[in-house]
Amino acid sequence: MELREILRRVDHTLLRPDARWDEIRTVCDEAARFGTASVCLPPSFVTRAAAYLDGRVPVCTVIGFPNGYAATAVKCFEAADAVAHGADEVDMVVNLGWVKDGRWDDILRELRAVRACTDGKVLKVIVETCLLTDGEKRTLCDLVGRSGADFIKTSTGFSSGGATVADVSLLAACRPPHLKIKAAGGIRTVADAEALIAAGADRLGTSRLVALAKAAGEVAP
Amino acid sequence: MELREILRRVDHTLLRPDARWDEIRTVCDEAARFGTASVCLPPSFVTRAAAYLDGRVPVCTVIGFPNGYAATAVKCFEAADAVAHGADEVDMVVNLGWVKDGRWDDILRELRAVRACTDGKVLKVIVETCLLTDGEKRTLCDLVGRSGADFIKTSTGFSSGGATVADVSLLAACRPPHLKIKAAGGIRTVADAEALIAAGADRLGTSRLVALAKAAGEVAP
Repeated sequence: MELREILRRVDHTLLRPDARWDEIRTVCDEAARFGTASVCLPPSFVTRAAAYLDGRVPVCTVIGFPNGYAATAVKCFEAADAVAHGADEVDMVVNLGWVKDGRWDDILRELRAVRACTDGKVLKVIVETCLLTDGEKRTLCDLVGRSGADFIKTSTGFSSGGATVADVSLLAACRPPHLKIKAAGGIRTVADAEALIAAGADRLGTSRLVALAKAAGEVAP
Repeated sequence: MELREILRRVDHTLLRPDARWDEIRTVCDEAARFGTASVCLPPSFVTRAAAYLDGRVPVCTVIGFPNGYAATAVKCFEAADAVAHGADEVDMVVNLGWVKDGRWDDILRELRAVRACTDGKVLKVIVETCLLTDGEKRTLCDLVGRSGADFIKTSTGFSSGGATVADVSLLAACRPPHLKIKAAGGIRTVADAEALIAAGADRLGTSRLVALAKAAGEVAP
């Protein structure tokens, strides 16, 4: 697969806690230049990035991130606030303590509540696969599918592991047809990207592929 | 210093993303048994922990945690929500991107906004010292002091480093008299605790000291 083709599936991402505006702006410029699916940024930069990009690239941000244990009302408020300030896509983290306690009804209720706060924008649900059993991954695939979310996403990039081909294959095998898969965390090479896409990933969260494209001197189509 | 004396300054802490209720309840029981200053828990467990503890131990939770880049309105909503559900203390994270951009006015405005949402409860401001220059630490010490917060806190425990004696000494030298210091992250031994207290720490965020007390068979006074 050509790098240009892969980049169309990338959420070009900068979520470091101490990222400065000039770094965020560079990521926005790179996303526009290389035609990525979106640019994924901290919530406090959404307003400025949306104004700067002015529709050239969809703006993605994160909700209840990365630990997932904000209260449901807070996740809803944060999602609505992000959308009101220009976010086109929101990546929320599931409550992992509730997963471990088997509070599946509460999880589905929370996912539906956030879905209702996002004004039809793209909603991705991060399940942090590195902390889950295969059974938990399957149950969450079902719940995320039933919640009306658009994507199930493997990882925050802030835990003990990122996307694996095995996890993407597992999610691809149990997802309902309308639910897409975003792989994120630890994606460093074109070979990583190709393997995850072959396993069923529709989106990739990474900053490395644009860095590779820059190093290769690739230009936009 | 006796371990019992040290424990009175400890926020007994469990902030793992996948912590279950039975683990949280155990931490609550331990905090009550050993007389810690508070128990520090994820926001989504505040209601249940406050009901369970019923005033035996103050409940502390975290806001905009651990990355600090939630929008100001979201931090305010989260703080007010936590207090409304029973939090006695809230530990918020400063916006570190704003620190790196030198947006000091925005930072002070945010701290004061959260202060206004916390109904007079104890407010601690986490500055994540491991990501800061000494100059940034001093500027934040001044701003946190002027915001009306009760504590400046070194670390989230989720970044590249925790509390150091050097950082606590620096904060102790530049804080205004009313501002207390909480050291958190990487505190593992009684010697660690004693050194940080000697340097000026009024509180310690850790789970290890209660674990040591349990291992030593200590009982409450």
